[in-house]
Amino acid sequence: MASRIAVGSFSDRLWKYPGAVRARAPASAANLGPGFDTLALALQLYVEVEVRPADRLSVRAEGEGADLDEEAGHLAARVAIDVTGHDHHAITVRSQIPVARGLGSSAALAAAAAAAAGSKDPLSVAARVDGHPENAAASCVGGLVAATLVRGAVRAVRLPLDERLVFVVIVPDRSLPTTKARQVLPHAVNRSDATFNLGRMALLLAGLAERSVLIHEATEDRLHQDYRIPLFAEAPHLMSKLLQAGALASCWSGAGPSVLGICDVADCAAVRAGAEEAMAQYAVEGKVLVLRADLEGLVVEDSGPSSHP
Amino acid sequence: MASRIAVGSFSDRLWKYPGAVRARAPASAANLGPGFDTLALALQLYVEVEVRPADRLSVRAEGEGADLDEEAGHLAARVAIDVTGHDHHAITVRSQIPVARGLGSSAALAAAAAAAAGSKDPLSVAARVDGHPENAAASCVGGLVAATLVRGAVRAVRLPLDERLVFVVIVPDRSLPTTKARQVLPHAVNRSDATFNLGRMALLLAGLAERSVLIHEATEDRLHQDYRIPLFAEAPHLMSKLLQAGALASCWSGAGPSVLGICDVADCAAVRAGAEEAMAQYAVEGKVLVLRADLEGLVVEDSGPSSHP
Repeated sequence: MASRIAVGSFSDRLWKYPGAVRARAPASAANLGPGFDTLALALQLYVEVEVRPADRLSVRAEGEGADLDEEAGHLAARVAIDVTGHDHHAITVRSQIPVARGLGSSAALAAAAAAAAGSKDPLSVAARVDGHPENAAASCVGGLVAATLVRGAVRAVRLPLDERLVFVVIVPDRSLPTTKARQVLPHAVNRSDATFNLGRMALLLAGLAERSVLIHEATEDRLHQDYRIPLFAEAPHLMSKLLQAGALASCWSGAGPSVLGICDVADCAAVRAGAEEAMAQYAVEGKVLVLRADLEGLVVEDSGPSSHP
Repeated sequence: MASRIAVGSFSDRLWKYPGAVRARAPASAANLGPGFDTLALALQLYVEVEVRPADRLSVRAEGEGADLDEEAGHLAARVAIDVTGHDHHAITVRSQIPVARGLGSSAALAAAAAAAAGSKDPLSVAARVDGHPENAAASCVGGLVAATLVRGAVRAVRLPLDERLVFVVIVPDRSLPTTKARQVLPHAVNRSDATFNLGRMALLLAGLAERSVLIHEATEDRLHQDYRIPLFAEAPHLMSKLLQAGALASCWSGAGPSVLGICDVADCAAVRAGAEEAMAQYAVEGKVLVLRADLEGLVVEDSGPSSHP
């Protein structure tokens, strides 16, 4: 799952030290409509974590989320301590992944931190810390994945993904904590709604494997999206506009508030323009990202004993 | 979907007449554990229907189900009348598919009858008559399919299936009408059970596409199988025995009472032996079939104007 890559693949801004290990993990969009708590898609938006030996714990954070956590409480530090059993780490985090936007930032950070701290099983660590096996699996495996717990352990499978698909992501300037997004969901659902999602998920998997059979109904869902509209009333309007602009399908990304337009690479400029128009029309502040799927998942490098500080 | 094939592919027992059309459709195993009302798999067990012009309606039936229906009420006749708007048909049905055993006999019969009667859309006819889009889709498309209703119309997609998989089917000598099997299901389910099935279905689809990742937990289900145990208490024991004998996974076929062992072709003799032992142990009368997936779906031939009676 984790592969060693050339140093040049990482950001140049991170310094390397003897004994340092750094790891990079992609963001992810979970659920994708019908695949509630099951599907996730890795996206080319990354967090890097470097862990090196130190006399005492320190965490330096740059980029997205840098302003959010105190040093000792930082998720990366908690994971590194959890993995190693001690806190003698100098940790550097650099993230492109907006926090609490439905883009799997904490699963990606946990996976990268676990790998950089030397864990042999960063997927399990990230799934346990973050609570979302599907996000953790996408961040570790890359591509389109399904993940679920089988007898308490995360079981992840990679599923086929048409390489011509591109993802236009509307990232609003507001956070929506997953815990809050989960509280609005009912405990019981109609059996017909459960089977509705099974049918739609099968259509979606076929359509993500081969875009010519992807229809916009494939992202319809009856288990979570509609219940969450009160938390972000603009979401269904934004999703409709993405379709009108040429997206093949649209859905919430994770628990939101980000929404995703799934489109052919040929249409992504038009869909991006449609997303920007829709945000203006509904007065939603934020940004639009046009992302390809990440197919590498978690990658790890270590500086080795010969590196000079 | 329906393709023209050489006459030799059909049973030799059916005569051909000018203006006659005959069609063949495979049996199917629906649900496959988690894919309730969504997935179905076409199996190499067939029904053939021949429809030819006649002064008055007649139905001749051979094989499975031949003893069950009166002439005018025969499903094939109802479908032919539905498709053509009249009853001037001489219909011959020859079936290998046991009736009311969870093998999609009525969907296959309806699809073949619709095609033989000249329907341009036998899938829609069969789904409407039979009420199970997934069985109808498997009988029409072949292979592993998912089908669901999208704005009232059947939407079917073919999904990848590892060609080394073989299906050992225990067909008990007792019928279990689908209507009865459906009455025992609760109207509401826990959301966690709905998501459980989504996760298991994703594992199953990955495993059916590539048997090396098929694990027996992939056919676990919380929406229908356990509720139906009171209708066929031996089912879980038979399924366990199939696994012990080497099946990769096991599940109910449709609404039962047939159960299915999904196995590598190399193991099918051992699984068959295990199935026979289990039937003896639990005093379940019936038979064991070892079947490959049908990949052709519905095939149609017509005798053409030059055929002699």
